[in-house]
Amino acid sequence: MPINRQLRLQARPKGLLAPGDLQLTESPVPELQDGQALAKVKYLSMDPTMRVWMAVDSYLPAVGIGDVMRAAGLAEVIESRHAQFKKGDKLVGLTGLQEYVVIEAQSKFSFQKVPSIPFLSDTAFLGVLGMTGLTAYFGMTEIAKPQKGETLVVSSAAGATGSVAGQIGKIHGCRVVGIAGTDDKCAWLTDELGFDAAINYKHADWKEKLAAATPDGIDIDYENVGGEIMEEVLKHMNLHGRVVLCGLISGYTKETAGPANLGILIVKRLKVEGFLVLDYASRFTDAAMELGKWKMLGKLKDRQTIVEGLEKASEAINMLFTGGNTGKLIVKV
Amino acid sequence: MPINRQLRLQARPKGLLAPGDLQLTESPVPELQDGQALAKVKYLSMDPTMRVWMAVDSYLPAVGIGDVMRAAGLAEVIESRHAQFKKGDKLVGLTGLQEYVVIEAQSKFSFQKVPSIPFLSDTAFLGVLGMTGLTAYFGMTEIAKPQKGETLVVSSAAGATGSVAGQIGKIHGCRVVGIAGTDDKCAWLTDELGFDAAINYKHADWKEKLAAATPDGIDIDYENVGGEIMEEVLKHMNLHGRVVLCGLISGYTKETAGPANLGILIVKRLKVEGFLVLDYASRFTDAAMELGKWKMLGKLKDRQTIVEGLEKASEAINMLFTGGNTGKLIVKV
Repeated sequence: MPINRQLRLQARPKGLLAPGDLQLTESPVPELQDGQALAKVKYLSMDPTMRVWMAVDSYLPAVGIGDVMRAAGLAEVIESRHAQFKKGDKLVGLTGLQEYVVIEAQSKFSFQKVPSIPFLSDTAFLGVLGMTGLTAYFGMTEIAKPQKGETLVVSSAAGATGSVAGQIGKIHGCRVVGIAGTDDKCAWLTDELGFDAAINYKHADWKEKLAAATPDGIDIDYENVGGEIMEEVLKHMNLHGRVVLCGLISGYTKETAGPANLGILIVKRLKVEGFLVLDYASRFTDAAMELGKWKMLGKLKDRQTIVEGLEKASEAINMLFTGGNTGKLIVKV
Repeated sequence: MPINRQLRLQARPKGLLAPGDLQLTESPVPELQDGQALAKVKYLSMDPTMRVWMAVDSYLPAVGIGDVMRAAGLAEVIESRHAQFKKGDKLVGLTGLQEYVVIEAQSKFSFQKVPSIPFLSDTAFLGVLGMTGLTAYFGMTEIAKPQKGETLVVSSAAGATGSVAGQIGKIHGCRVVGIAGTDDKCAWLTDELGFDAAINYKHADWKEKLAAATPDGIDIDYENVGGEIMEEVLKHMNLHGRVVLCGLISGYTKETAGPANLGILIVKRLKVEGFLVLDYASRFTDAAMELGKWKMLGKLKDRQTIVEGLEKASEAINMLFTGGNTGKLIVKV
C-alpha cells in the first residue's frame, strides 16, 4: 500500500498559524475493508472556518490534537470495495489534509460524486458550486432576500464566498459595493464581476469612499469580516436593514470580533442573522444546479488561487486572513 | 405667571451623571399664545434612553447643551387656549424635566389625553400602559413572537420593561427566567409576577443558576443589558434562537456593550433584532387596551418606584444604571 502524507494538528494556534501547529506525518494506507473505498486527494479547499475548527468547539467539534486536520477536498477513487463509488469516480467531501482518504461504507459527512459537466473544472465543486458558493447562495436567498434596487455591501468581497454573494446581488438587481484589500481585487470586482463599486479598505480614505459609493445608504450587509469594517458599514445602514452574518474573519485570529457596541442595531432597528450552510444540505443539489446555470450563462464568474503542495496548506490557511488569495483558495496536492 | 423650575443639560455625562450635568434654572412661564395650553407637570418618567439623549444623536437628536432635558411625563392642563385640550385634562407626552410645559397647537411629539379608568392610577400611563409597557408589548409580540413551551430569558427583568416582557411571555405560555440584581427583585419576579425562576447576577454562582434554570436551553433572549450578562445568556441559546435587542444599559454609561465576539451568532444561527417602540405608534391605542385588559384580569402586575422632587431627577436617572428601582421609576414633581 502507498504511504499517506498527512497534516496533523499538533497545537491550537494563537493568532495566525505557526509552523509547528500542523505537522507532516507519514503512515502506510491501511488495507481496505469490505465496504470501503480508497481515494487519492487531488485538491483541498482552504476555508476560514478551518481556523475555527483548529481552536474551539463550534458547530463542529474542534479537531483533536494529533488528528488529521479536517478539510474539504476533491478526491478520485483509486480502489473500491464500496457499494456506491467505483474506481475513477471523483468525489467531494471532508477528505482532511492528506494525500489519501479511506471512505467508509457509511460516514457521517458523506462524499458526493462530482458530475462531469462541459466547461466546468472539477475544482468548481470546491468553490463556486461547492461550499463557498452554496454559502453565498443560501446567505443571499434565504437570509438577505435581496430586492431590486436595494444596496448591498459585501466585505471580503474578493473572497470565494463574497465574490459569489455580490454577483447574486447583481442577479437580483441590487446596487453592489464590495470591500477588499488590494486595488487588483477591487478592479476584478468592478471590471469582471460587475460590482457597481469596490473599496480598498487599506486606503486611508476608504471610509469616505464607502460613504460616496452608498448614496442611498445600505440595505444589506453581507458580512464576512466583523470588527472595524463591520462597524463602518453599520453606520451607513438604512433603518430596518439586515446583516447577513456569514463570517467574522477579523475575529478568527483574535478574541474579539466587533462591533464593540451593538447600540446601533437598536437605533437603526437592524436585524443581524447568523447562518450555516450545513442547515440547507437537503437543498444543495438544486442550489448547485442554479449556480451552475448562472455560471454557464456568464452571470457568475469565479477565480481560483492555487497553491501547490500539501505541505503548503498551513501557509495557505494564513493567506485567508492576510488577504493573499483572490476567489477560491485551493491547495493542489 | 408662575415661575418654572427646569433642569437643563449643562454637560454631556461621562459614565453616570455628575451633579453638574443637569442644572436647575428658574424662569417665568411665558404668556400663553393663541392655540397653546399650559400644563403643570405632575410625574416624570425616568428611562435609560434619557442617558442616550444626553450623550449622542441616536433615533432622536441629542438634547442641546442649555436646553431643558427631554423626558416623558404626565401633566395636567391648568390654562388652555388650545383647540384640543381643556383645563383639567391629564396628558402624557414629552414634557421635559420641568414643572410647567407649554403645549403648542401642533407639536411634533404630540400629547395624548389620559383616560380616567377605574382601578388604574394615572401613572400607569407612564409605565405598564405607557412607553415601557408598550416597548415590552411590541418587542414580545412583533419581534420575539413567543410560542407556547419556549424558554424566555429577560435581563433587567425587574425593570419597567423587563417585568412586563416576562409577564407577556407567561401569558403566551413560555417558561420565563428573569435576571435581576437583588434577592428582593428576584422574589418579586417569582412570587408576585409568576416568573418560573429569577437569577440574582450579583451572586457568584449566577452562571450555574442560569444554566440550571434553563434545562431546555433558551429560545428567546429579551435583552435589556448587553455586556457580560448577554454573553452568558447567548451560551445557552438554542439553535435558531432569537434575541430581541430592546436595550443595552450596560453600555449607556461606557463605550462598549458586548458581546465582544459575535461568532456565537453564526455557530448557533441566532437572529438579533433591534427595535424601537416609536415605529409602532399607530398601534399604541390598541396595544394599551390589550395591556389594560391583562392588567384588569390580574395577568399583568406592576410596581412603581417613586422619587419625590424635580431636583432629584439626576440621581433618579443614575438609579436606572445602578439597580436602584424596581418596576417603573417615576419622579413626582
